[in-house]
Order: sequence, then structure tokens, then C-alpha cells
Amino acid sequence: MPLTQLNIIKIGGKLINDAIELDRVLRAFAAIEGPKILIHGGGRKATEVSESMGLEVVMVEGRRVTDTATLEIAVMVYAGLINKNIVASLQSVGCNAVGLCGADASIMTSHKRQVKSIDYGWVGDIDHVHVDALQKLLSVGFVPVLCPVTHDGRGQLLNTNADTIAAATAGAMSKSYKISLKYCFEYPGVLYDVNQTGQTMTSMSESEFSAMRSEGSIHSGMIPKLSNGFEALRQGASEVSICGIDNLFDLDGATKLSL
Amino acid sequence: MPLTQLNIIKIGGKLINDAIELDRVLRAFAAIEGPKILIHGGGRKATEVSESMGLEVVMVEGRRVTDTATLEIAVMVYAGLINKNIVASLQSVGCNAVGLCGADASIMTSHKRQVKSIDYGWVGDIDHVHVDALQKLLSVGFVPVLCPVTHDGRGQLLNTNADTIAAATAGAMSKSYKISLKYCFEYPGVLYDVNQTGQTMTSMSESEFSAMRSEGSIHSGMIPKLSNGFEALRQGASEVSICGIDNLFDLDGATKLSL
Repeated sequence: MPLTQLNIIKIGGKLINDAIELDRVLRAFAAIEGPKILIHGGGRKATEVSESMGLEVVMVEGRRVTDTATLEIAVMVYAGLINKNIVASLQSVGCNAVGLCGADASIMTSHKRQVKSIDYGWVGDIDHVHVDALQKLLSVGFVPVLCPVTHDGRGQLLNTNADTIAAATAGAMSKSYKISLKYCFEYPGVLYDVNQTGQTMTSMSESEFSAMRSEGSIHSGMIPKLSNGFEALRQGASEVSICGIDNLFDLDGATKLSL
Repeated sequence: MPLTQLNIIKIGGKLINDAIELDRVLRAFAAIEGPKILIHGGGRKATEVSESMGLEVVMVEGRRVTDTATLEIAVMVYAGLINKNIVASLQSVGCNAVGLCGADASIMTSHKRQVKSIDYGWVGDIDHVHVDALQKLLSVGFVPVLCPVTHDGRGQLLNTNADTIAAATAGAMSKSYKISLKYCFEYPGVLYDVNQTGQTMTSMSESEFSAMRSEGSIHSGMIPKLSNGFEALRQGASEVSICGIDNLFDLDGATKLSL
């Protein structure tokens, strides 16, 4: 019997901080038929809240160093403010959303990243996605909305990159579903040139990605999305694309990844 | 066929802000057998975060006036920081908690309180508890952990008193379960005299409550718990008690309410 399709959409970038764009993408997500999961980031808002509390934001290679105060803010902003506003918006357009972090139903466990050259603090690298818990939620008609917070199973919450959460969810769920994973952001796909927004790559193989990365021709903000996208394909996702709101359904101009 | 018992425990007061007491009450909650729901407040932490962001906290008759910035903080603290830390702690002791606000699965809808003499701002008075959604979660073995945030069904989150959420949940679920509702706080029951912590009232009828309230002999902080407790009884809860952590199971010295 063919597997049921499960659509996993990750939204991030400027979409989350722009009320009109967020509303548009949530309406598009609500219109997707069948089982689906939404994953969101929210780093810009976390930075705003940190600054309003007088805390310094420390980024290393585009990743947030998470001390105790920053973890509290991450949990407040990602699992609270952004997650619950997204859920309320989805409910208002008839999508039966349930907002969750990795601790809820122990959906995602992780371990605190080991300190090597850089101490990232309370950042969690994913160990396990609890497929059974997600299936239970899907089976009763709920639409999981996941935020980038995980837990270690011993009571500690951890900050985990949302692109990585999307890839891990896609990989783990690919045993039970035919997975379509879409990273949806403010452009219709990966741009050849960030100054020429009309020109997107319609496909990218992992070897092209490696070559472009070596020669420095990929925007640093795209690297986590692309690395995680290829990882999801390796873990069994059927299709992974980078797209925008307007091509979320037809993927016209989106960048389709291949191994 | 007799109805299954559903234990609903509301924790609040100083328990939430004291890490050792919170750990104790969560372990006690985790040890309760059968279906159960935890409801938590968290006003003291919300006040701390408001102050750290330089916002003025306005209380009228013990109730928080919720402007837009205060609503954001309420959602961040209640649905994010406190809810997810409670869920992670419960998961660490084997309780399969799922943290939710009223928007999740549309568990609880409310409307913005009408402005009469006081404008409470983004405060929601409960319209409907979605019993079917809670039953679905319970039926697959999840333990709902509810925070004091609701939604209006049109995309707006609202701040709602946690004692009221507990009473409304108890009332609505009493059609399908035999409800035991316990308001658990820092004392073993309602004190005769707040300066003599050993002396608790072991029972209180609604007429006694009305008389004590008229003569001003009830501590103002107890009034919402008691009013809501009697309301839960009227709505069909089998038993409602005010208790502490040490008498959560045997209710020795707890205050049992009666109509």
C-alpha cells in the first residue's frame, strides 16, 4: 500500500516578523489537504526581546549562543509568543493546530551540545524524534505546530535550530509517510544573486551545493536550510524544496534539492 | 456504568516560583493514577519579566490589567517559560505531559471582557470548553497541562485567570467524568488566621463563604479560588478542595467545599 503523503512546511526568515506575510503563509498552510506539520523559527523576535531586556545577543557563525537568560527568552518567544499566535491564527481559519515544543509528549529529545572550540550554551543536538507521539496527534486530526525548543528528557529545555528540527522530523516520519518537506521563506527559491531577486535555481544537487559552498557563492543564511534539506533527503524524505509563499503549491521557480 | 474519575489539579501561588516546591508538587502530580489535567498560573513571574522590560504592572482588585505589551508577556511567560518547564519536568519523571493554551486544539474560547467601570484590556471571559479536544488528548494517554491563556476563535489570544480555567474545565468535563478538583497552593487549606498557619478550615459551605466574605474575614487572594471552586461544584464537579502539597492525596486538613 502506498504511504500517505505528509506535508512538512518550515517557515522562517522575514515571514515570521511581518504580520501580513505571516497571515498569508498561514492561510496557504491551512489550505493544504491531508496530514501536515508546521515548523517555525523566530530568531528576529527573540533578538528584539533580548535587547528590550538589556541582554547582549551573541551569534557565532549565524548561530545564537544560548546562556541561561537567552534560553529563557528563546522558550518565551518561540514556545510562547510566536507559537501561540500562529496557533490562534490557524484556528481562526479552520486549521485545528496544536502548538508544541519537543518536551510536549516528548516529541523530540536532544543533548546539550558538547563544548569544543565554541561553547554554544543551552543548545540541543537532536537524539530522537518520537514518531509515535506525532502519529497519535495526527491520527485524531490535530495539526502539530512545532517550535525550535527541545528537551533532554531530564527536565532541561534546549534551544535547537528550526531548520534542523524540520529535517529531523521529515527524516523520522519518512518510515511511515511519503514526506514532502518545504522550507518556505521570503524568496521563491535559492537566488543566483541576492541582488537579482527574479533569478532562482530550480534545482540543486548536493555536489553543486558543496562546490558553491567551497567557492563562497552561497549566502551564509542559506547554508543551514540547504544542509538540513540534503540531510532530510538522505534520511528518506521524498522531496525537499526551498520556496516562497506564492509558489508553495506549484513550486514554480522553487529550488528542488537532489542527492 | 459509573463515570471514570478525572483529577484536575490547579497549582499556583508561591509553588510556581519556588523551584524546590514546584518539583515536589510536580512529582506528587505525576504519581496520581488515571486521567488527569494540570492547570497552572504564574503571575509573579510575569510581574518579574514585565519589570525587567521596564513595564508598569497595573492590578485592579488583584486582577492584572492587560495592555498589548502585558498580553505579550503573559503569553511568553505562561504559555512559554512556565508551561514548557513544567512539561519538561513532568516528562523527566515519567508523566506524558502536553502543554497547551486555550488556542491549542481550540480547547478554550473566550471573549474580550466588556469595558464597564474598569477596562481590563486583553482579558478573556470563557465562553466554551472544547471537551472533545481534551478527551482526544486523554484518550491517547497524554496529560494536558493548561496555562491561563485562551483565544477568541478569530486569532486573538486573551489572558484568563487560571482559577477560572480550572473551574470551567472541571464543570465542562463533569458531563463525561467524575471530577475531583483540587486547588493546590502553599498552605494545607484555607487558614482561619493567616498568622496561624496550623489552623485550617476542614470544610466551607457557600453560605459560610458568603458570610465570611461580607464581614471581610477572608484573605483577598483566596476569593477567586473559592468563588471558582463553588462555581465548579454548581457546574457538576463531584468534589472541590483547597489543599497543599503534603495533603494532596489524603486531603488531611484541606478545606472541602460544599454548596
